[in-house]
Amino acid sequence: MKDSPPEEMLKQQFVIDVIRRIYQKYGFDPLDTPALEDWGLLSAKKGGGEEIKQEIYYFKDKSDREVGLRFDLTVPLARFFVNNPKLPLPFKRSHIAKVWRYDRPGAMRWREFWQADADTVGSDNPLSDAEFLRAACEIFYELGLNDVVFRINNRKTLQAFVESIGVKDYVDVFRTIDKLDKMGKDGVEKELKEKGVNQDKIKKILEFIEIKNLKNVRQYVTEGVDEIEKILDLMGEYKNNFQVDMSLVRGLEYYTGPICEMSLGEKYGDAFGVGSSLPTVACFGRFDTLTEAVGGKKIPATGGSIGVDRVIFIMEKRGLFKDFPKTVTKIFVISVNENMKNDVISIVNKFRKLGISSEFDLMGRSLSKQLDYASSRGIPYVIVIGEKELKSKKAKLRDMKTGEEKDILLNKLDDVKKNMK
Amino acid sequence: MKDSPPEEMLKQQFVIDVIRRIYQKYGFDPLDTPALEDWGLLSAKKGGGEEIKQEIYYFKDKSDREVGLRFDLTVPLARFFVNNPKLPLPFKRSHIAKVWRYDRPGAMRWREFWQADADTVGSDNPLSDAEFLRAACEIFYELGLNDVVFRINNRKTLQAFVESIGVKDYVDVFRTIDKLDKMGKDGVEKELKEKGVNQDKIKKILEFIEIKNLKNVRQYVTEGVDEIEKILDLMGEYKNNFQVDMSLVRGLEYYTGPICEMSLGEKYGDAFGVGSSLPTVACFGRFDTLTEAVGGKKIPATGGSIGVDRVIFIMEKRGLFKDFPKTVTKIFVISVNENMKNDVISIVNKFRKLGISSEFDLMGRSLSKQLDYASSRGIPYVIVIGEKELKSKKAKLRDMKTGEEKDILLNKLDDVKKNMK
Repeated sequence: MKDSPPEEMLKQQFVIDVIRRIYQKYGFDPLDTPALEDWGLLSAKKGGGEEIKQEIYYFKDKSDREVGLRFDLTVPLARFFVNNPKLPLPFKRSHIAKVWRYDRPGAMRWREFWQADADTVGSDNPLSDAEFLRAACEIFYELGLNDVVFRINNRKTLQAFVESIGVKDYVDVFRTIDKLDKMGKDGVEKELKEKGVNQDKIKKILEFIEIKNLKNVRQYVTEGVDEIEKILDLMGEYKNNFQVDMSLVRGLEYYTGPICEMSLGEKYGDAFGVGSSLPTVACFGRFDTLTEAVGGKKIPATGGSIGVDRVIFIMEKRGLFKDFPKTVTKIFVISVNENMKNDVISIVNKFRKLGISSEFDLMGRSLSKQLDYASSRGIPYVIVIGEKELKSKKAKLRDMKTGEEKDILLNKLDDVKKNMK
Repeated sequence: MKDSPPEEMLKQQFVIDVIRRIYQKYGFDPLDTPALEDWGLLSAKKGGGEEIKQEIYYFKDKSDREVGLRFDLTVPLARFFVNNPKLPLPFKRSHIAKVWRYDRPGAMRWREFWQADADTVGSDNPLSDAEFLRAACEIFYELGLNDVVFRINNRKTLQAFVESIGVKDYVDVFRTIDKLDKMGKDGVEKELKEKGVNQDKIKKILEFIEIKNLKNVRQYVTEGVDEIEKILDLMGEYKNNFQVDMSLVRGLEYYTGPICEMSLGEKYGDAFGVGSSLPTVACFGRFDTLTEAVGGKKIPATGGSIGVDRVIFIMEKRGLFKDFPKTVTKIFVISVNENMKNDVISIVNKFRKLGISSEFDLMGRSLSKQLDYASSRGIPYVIVIGEKELKSKKAKLRDMKTGEEKDILLNKLDDVKKNMK
């Protein structure tokens, strides 16, 4: 787990604000749930297995109840939904919050990280799949990540194909296909052979998972293809960011229909500790059985999750945060000596009333030490106030980066806004 | 622990946004730290005692490390500060996040709740005390809670007084005075007697803790009084919200100088489960020894914390959220039948491009069912789109509350903003 110092927090705040605004524009109302959930609920997602205890922060509380820190925001959504049977349907909610996983930490893996989810519960129409996907596209575009790739598939299509060639345990085949990125085509072939799938079927599987367009998919199978097509039609100007990809499985999670995995370029592949595969920055899927798995009735649901920390990491690597503020403070007002401290405070109070973040010396420091401080904090502007400035009611707004100075009138402080970038 | 459904989240979002904006205007840069901290750190605040295990979520992780969920944001700040010795001083940070306490839950006590802190590390000047206090005043005013009362005292003053009458163990006397709200003057008298304080001293203590102005304080003791005075002078227009109160102790926490406790009226006293005392909505204090307690060198520090959930609770009780939105969505665009669904989607896409939160039917419902849905969600406006509307490029924006309808042009959708409250 890591601290987020101000410099990082300002970037996070920026990214989260964009996500929040766009999710809310699409009508995803905000929801929050507790960090701790019952262990029984947390384990329900993966079929009640004990192995999930190894992957999450699990413990017994003082009343001996088994609890855990949530590892995603989808399971709490399902629990909330089941607990609130009177919610009008569809229930569209967004949730931007921390989750915790007891993972091996790595370059792009943290044990505590932020997820930004938006989901629609109650509709089985591809229109509801498209709601999250369009919002996600708009978010990536607004963050300057227009080259985002949405690989798209449909669990129904994949399952129908695997069954069509006479394989009974499609889940087992999914598990192998899911490793394509990690172990390549040869690895998939080898593992399927070990699993006893015959050579002819393996050949067909390897052919099928290479398909990148719906026309070719239809030559093998039709189930779920219309859904993908409908979703793509709804993407409008974002359609070119989508890539049909029959090898996409999205793990052994609870997905039941359309699925997507979003990634950004290959160049940081190694830094992310994900080998040759593309780092995933967001994911999406339909999960029509999750409410049932947590003890409610079966209700269709769909949505996705944006990995906030990964998005920030990539934006940083790409230089999208070049010249980004290091502090919230815009102006540091310097007092030449303690005699004009009260005047300085009154100027700062006026700036704050005008909504301009500003500060003054709290340490009784000299002019040059105050300048050093403003500079070390990365505060973009300073104003020096001495007797001359107070008398003439004029001062200079200094741009700390360029050294450029502009005249300002102390009785017209609202004009200062115009002189700041 | 409680869920925060959309209706609650919108209020929380509003309050947190106000706090964040004002803290940042005062130059408190945002900081975030992990939810989990080492147990050793968490216990340091209260002097390393084991009893704190009873009050927090404590457990051993899989590598047998003792950890706990943070119970406040001040201890993590001290740890962060000690870990980052090169931070420019003063270090001003704000932190708005969840904390967890294994408390007996009650009307105003949750096991998971939001705190909004702002602190200044590195300055022993009362100017730095005033920074948080002014920001807090501005926040309460902006939230419509102008009647907030800041009871103010100084630990130095209280300690000097207790020592001046010849009591050695001032902490033990503090512990009793701190219960004045709970057990009244008689209770304090009784407990001090039990502790072996003689009658004459008890009389003086009871006299002293009733003092409500600095002039009278000075007749007993002078230590720390100038600091309170200086702080009050810096409060400007908020000065009348402050009440000198020599009975204020603020628990046995780590405070070393000026302290404040903020409360709002008496009328909800019982609902808050705090008996006859005022419910505290925020607190403040100087803590010059905390960095030392967590293993660093001694550095002066000061700041406070606003209890976000309590503030929301009181605003709610006072009706300040009357007519507050129930959903982020402003307009629901209704399709008379499925034939005009694509046109409806294109209208919604245009609204979203304009920054207007809007939605459409995802369920293939009839006109009246769509109206019911918009109404049950509390969406304030609907637009019905049928063939007539598409042909004439005119439609009506209906205010769901008043039933009032206004004409809008489908090719001038940006005008709709003017027609919404």
